[in-house]
Amino acid sequence: MVAPNETVNGVQPEKVDVLIVGAGPAGLMMAEWMAKCGIKTRICDKRGTKIFNGQADGLQCRTLEIFDSFGFGHRAWIESNHMLEICLWNPDKDGIIRRSDRIPDTIPGISRFQQVVLHQGRIERFFLDSIESCSDIRVERGVMPSKLELNQTLVEDNDAYPITVTLRHLSEEEATPQQQTGTSTNGTSVMDGLFRSNIAPDDTQDLLNDSAHLNGKANTEEVIQAKYVLGADGAHSWVRNQLGFKLEGESTDYIWGVLDIVPITDFPDIRMRCAIHSASAGSVMVIPRENKLVRLYIQLTTTEKIGDSAGARVDRSKITPQTILQAAQRIIAPYKLDYRKLDWWTAYQIGQRVGTQFSSHERIFLAGDAVHTHSPKAGQGMNVSMQDAYNLGWKVANVVKGIASRDILKTYQSERRRIAQDLIAFDHRFSRLFSGRPAKDVMDEEGISIQEFKNAFEKGNMFASGIAVDYGSSLIVAKQGNSTDQGDGTDVGVHNPDYQVLSIPTLATKVEVGKRIPSHKILNQSDARPSHLHELLRSNGRWRIITFAGDIRDPVQAAKLKNVGTKLAAPNSFLKRFTPSGGRYDDVFEVLAIHNAPRTQVSFFDFPEVYRNFDEIEGWDYWKIFVDGQSYHEGHGQIYENLGIGPAGCSVVLRPDQYVSYVGPMDAYDELDKFFSGFMVTQEKGKKVVLS
Amino acid sequence: MVAPNETVNGVQPEKVDVLIVGAGPAGLMMAEWMAKCGIKTRICDKRGTKIFNGQADGLQCRTLEIFDSFGFGHRAWIESNHMLEICLWNPDKDGIIRRSDRIPDTIPGISRFQQVVLHQGRIERFFLDSIESCSDIRVERGVMPSKLELNQTLVEDNDAYPITVTLRHLSEEEATPQQQTGTSTNGTSVMDGLFRSNIAPDDTQDLLNDSAHLNGKANTEEVIQAKYVLGADGAHSWVRNQLGFKLEGESTDYIWGVLDIVPITDFPDIRMRCAIHSASAGSVMVIPRENKLVRLYIQLTTTEKIGDSAGARVDRSKITPQTILQAAQRIIAPYKLDYRKLDWWTAYQIGQRVGTQFSSHERIFLAGDAVHTHSPKAGQGMNVSMQDAYNLGWKVANVVKGIASRDILKTYQSERRRIAQDLIAFDHRFSRLFSGRPAKDVMDEEGISIQEFKNAFEKGNMFASGIAVDYGSSLIVAKQGNSTDQGDGTDVGVHNPDYQVLSIPTLATKVEVGKRIPSHKILNQSDARPSHLHELLRSNGRWRIITFAGDIRDPVQAAKLKNVGTKLAAPNSFLKRFTPSGGRYDDVFEVLAIHNAPRTQVSFFDFPEVYRNFDEIEGWDYWKIFVDGQSYHEGHGQIYENLGIGPAGCSVVLRPDQYVSYVGPMDAYDELDKFFSGFMVTQEKGKKVVLS
Repeated sequence: MVAPNETVNGVQPEKVDVLIVGAGPAGLMMAEWMAKCGIKTRICDKRGTKIFNGQADGLQCRTLEIFDSFGFGHRAWIESNHMLEICLWNPDKDGIIRRSDRIPDTIPGISRFQQVVLHQGRIERFFLDSIESCSDIRVERGVMPSKLELNQTLVEDNDAYPITVTLRHLSEEEATPQQQTGTSTNGTSVMDGLFRSNIAPDDTQDLLNDSAHLNGKANTEEVIQAKYVLGADGAHSWVRNQLGFKLEGESTDYIWGVLDIVPITDFPDIRMRCAIHSASAGSVMVIPRENKLVRLYIQLTTTEKIGDSAGARVDRSKITPQTILQAAQRIIAPYKLDYRKLDWWTAYQIGQRVGTQFSSHERIFLAGDAVHTHSPKAGQGMNVSMQDAYNLGWKVANVVKGIASRDILKTYQSERRRIAQDLIAFDHRFSRLFSGRPAKDVMDEEGISIQEFKNAFEKGNMFASGIAVDYGSSLIVAKQGNSTDQGDGTDVGVHNPDYQVLSIPTLATKVEVGKRIPSHKILNQSDARPSHLHELLRSNGRWRIITFAGDIRDPVQAAKLKNVGTKLAAPNSFLKRFTPSGGRYDDVFEVLAIHNAPRTQVSFFDFPEVYRNFDEIEGWDYWKIFVDGQSYHEGHGQIYENLGIGPAGCSVVLRPDQYVSYVGPMDAYDELDKFFSGFMVTQEKGKKVVLS
Repeated sequence: MVAPNETVNGVQPEKVDVLIVGAGPAGLMMAEWMAKCGIKTRICDKRGTKIFNGQADGLQCRTLEIFDSFGFGHRAWIESNHMLEICLWNPDKDGIIRRSDRIPDTIPGISRFQQVVLHQGRIERFFLDSIESCSDIRVERGVMPSKLELNQTLVEDNDAYPITVTLRHLSEEEATPQQQTGTSTNGTSVMDGLFRSNIAPDDTQDLLNDSAHLNGKANTEEVIQAKYVLGADGAHSWVRNQLGFKLEGESTDYIWGVLDIVPITDFPDIRMRCAIHSASAGSVMVIPRENKLVRLYIQLTTTEKIGDSAGARVDRSKITPQTILQAAQRIIAPYKLDYRKLDWWTAYQIGQRVGTQFSSHERIFLAGDAVHTHSPKAGQGMNVSMQDAYNLGWKVANVVKGIASRDILKTYQSERRRIAQDLIAFDHRFSRLFSGRPAKDVMDEEGISIQEFKNAFEKGNMFASGIAVDYGSSLIVAKQGNSTDQGDGTDVGVHNPDYQVLSIPTLATKVEVGKRIPSHKILNQSDARPSHLHELLRSNGRWRIITFAGDIRDPVQAAKLKNVGTKLAAPNSFLKRFTPSGGRYDDVFEVLAIHNAPRTQVSFFDFPEVYRNFDEIEGWDYWKIFVDGQSYHEGHGQIYENLGIGPAGCSVVLRPDQYVSYVGPMDAYDELDKFFSGFMVTQEKGKKVVLS
């Protein structure tokens, strides 16, 4: 253990705010936050290169919303394959598969995005480009920790670097996984793909650079000190093992093969997402992908097991692309299926496990596969992993900057371990239904009811969108109910009555406290440009206070607007107390107004200055006052109606991750002050803090 | 002059298909086409670096459609400022300016894009990135021709390289314009801006590279031979001067200043596009831009002239940003206007001129400012210039590849010189109205009627969208009327009766032959994904034949579909005769079907194979059969109704630039064969041609 300012071999260890172990989707999401918030960060990965194909592929609506909040949603949207319709195929009375149902793949109206498919390598590319464009954080490849120590006496000292980590540079041989699937989110996996022609041009240069770089530093070691560490190092997490935390859960008997192929087939729905249950040959899930590829998840029913016991593991050495294809051919018959191009393949046995703890002293955190593993077919793994880090990143950044107290960090486990538990429960139900044999008729009690499967699919669609995530009551979510019940059992409630605030949900009946705010189109008051509400809520670490001011031609509304504007602008307001004096006026809180008077009958200058800050170089800020109105080219967003907001208006507090913290009266200044006082840090006057 | 295969100083001159002189928007558009079509091309520019701010800024809807067809429309859409509303400000009875009208900036419904503003440097960046991503064409900076010769005896030999050009590498001093505005499209301009902080990160590297590179080759010369040359080298075009072609037209007395500033003002519409006519202090056009900038076009009424005669030129040395700002302050009073950040500025006198000829022997072409100059305020200059090259590029590429005969090249002058003439006429009317003093009342005959100005603005909006462009009858546009009358007077008609075909416009009443086809949403039959029709019409040099098949459950429609499918697939069909045997089946013609039967009641396999080609490695082509139907998330495109197509369907031929060549009966195979036989080249069987 290294004490503060102690040297190691005569060298003062480098100090970083955050060290991220693992540069898969969860680790990169954390790095993205740190880059956007200007936090001093290092990120390492034991693999010598990023991955280029295969692996996880499904992107939820919610994940696309998050990508868009970082500025690269469009890249995923353009490159990905969009899935619009799910077709269910089931045996008819003669046992021949027939299309029985069509279901929209994404529930219409829940998001401005729909579910899409794009392989993990491209998603990592988008993160890498985004991180590089706004920070000097770079992934250090072929590097992994060899020693990790936490000085427990320092964990509550916000200025301390209580974690000491030794990083070791691997040789190229060590850094090259024997199997491409080595870090798969698919649980255990055994083999590698064959066809590598679709490496994207913007990945090629990296591939060359990485290989050339590795051996220069091979086997050297370096000691660094960190305030926070994130272990996002996969199902076999080294960090988790060091902490001694366990995963709880079990394996199932179901074994699945995965093929990414360019299909040659007369099956008419090969470009739809399909769930095909054959009468007795098993099931196939069809996931149409980018670049003419189709992913097939195929239940393997004939693989030999090692040993005879009920829980015996299958002998995966017997599985080849050919055996998987043959299984698929049996299921999809009488249609033909073949391929000449195979991009990637694997095989796995479903295991469903959740970590017992997601952090050690809120200093060392775990995210992604390191704390939950499950089956891949619902397309959740990569999404939930990234959303773990999305939940954690802004909290760590706010604490490192001295804006928020360390108390908020406990909400990470409370919020995300609960999600992982829900996911495992969902996956358990879904996998059983998908893997089971379809019932022959209503008397066939061992078989799976097709109707039950369809119902589960439709309900699962809401879960699988990521939109349903509902964080429990806590010091950062002001809603009714017990915080331990609504989370994973961690105590994250408000205990000081001075800071206890409750939302008034009736003021915005379709805004659910704890969920991400729905997005609808609004117009900028100053230039009439339509944008989605979410487009204003960039992920940059800022809290948002939205004043839904109603029709400000009404003297009552105008008076309330003036009142709250005056209080927010007062020298002792929470805006001023919690915003460092060296930064921008909106570095901590962004104050927005959305009114619903006719746009042309009110003016930008009718609003208090707190909604349109004046700067002597930049002039007025024209980008914070909006109207619920008719656009020239993109319709009417009807945001008041869609959020259930009445003529009295309301105020809404959003966390930096777009989740709703509070809904209250439009002029509820005192409640906002109480709410933020519960976890924000009063800034010293004149103390300069460097903010991004 | 260099004869074929002659050497120069013992060196065989390099042969290129196309040499482009000038790497502004017109030259880059040409290079983009060449890159997409795989044509051997060089492009040089006398400037040592690309431009980084100022210059032209407005992008028409049509230009965005074109960018999107090359794959970078979204970059312009995301980075640009969108202009939604035009506010007209005029003196009230007391002579105080008041908002008199609001007009939508883009006419609703004419395009899926709206007018936006983004400076020329970013647009050049998008082209450079796109060209680099799909070709080895790179702009050679600090290079300009010093000698140009055309061997007229070879101009009709398609295999010849009749043009010999000497290229000279300039020194850094020569390649650095004394004024940033030296190549402005604003006609003559005199001075440079001051504030350079907004160079985009992706431009910075180029800036460093270019400067380092220049002097290595300074003053060396190189001789090359080309099949075609494009002079896109600006208003003072060296290529035009070598050819001895003139610009015809005149200067006006109006003098204007331009400021790109971050405004500090209480004028309430500063983020709207505004036309402000003061009672007697002149006019201002307000163009809100990206990065908080606003461009002001300000009429200067007090500048001294050199000499006393009526046509005397103003003394531009007297113009400074301060004098322009003061003029603006007088016009916008009683509102205040000031700035602390000035990004760029210039001053110009309006000149309206059109070139007498757009090509020499259809071997050396001119485009952009080299053949038309006019005032910048309608935001047309850069758009029309790029659209010149967009019209020319695919024609040259088709001819170089031996797919089309040289006859199609004459349509460039016929189509684009006519557009330039129309533009000058529009600009003349618009400038007069904008520059004139507003009438005090109906008796004030010297003043400009506000109503007339408003009407002109509204009509001008259609013109300024670029959507109204309507190419005349020619060998590639099968419509009624005389080709010389409908163009600039060049004879581009079909003289062989065997190839004369006329469209039947009643079959698609809202598709206008000669205009670009409108875009509406359709669904892919195989995966139900909605896309805009235009998204299918990528700019890659291919012609499209769209079969609007109607309701193919109707036996009559099904029979016609089968019939035309059989004829198109026959061994002697024009598809086969004009497609080189070495390439892909859709290298020359892309055959698409759009039906309007209910999507779920017909199958992909109901269509003839010519609409869903089978390849033994890639399988079926799922991306050519579409349906007019309801989408799950994006409404119903109603393309049959919106294009005015009845139950009998129709066939539509589109040029590679999305302009409509022909509308006829759904099964009009013979007419298509005649049409294409008029200008396409029969390919030798077994002769391999390398296509992109």
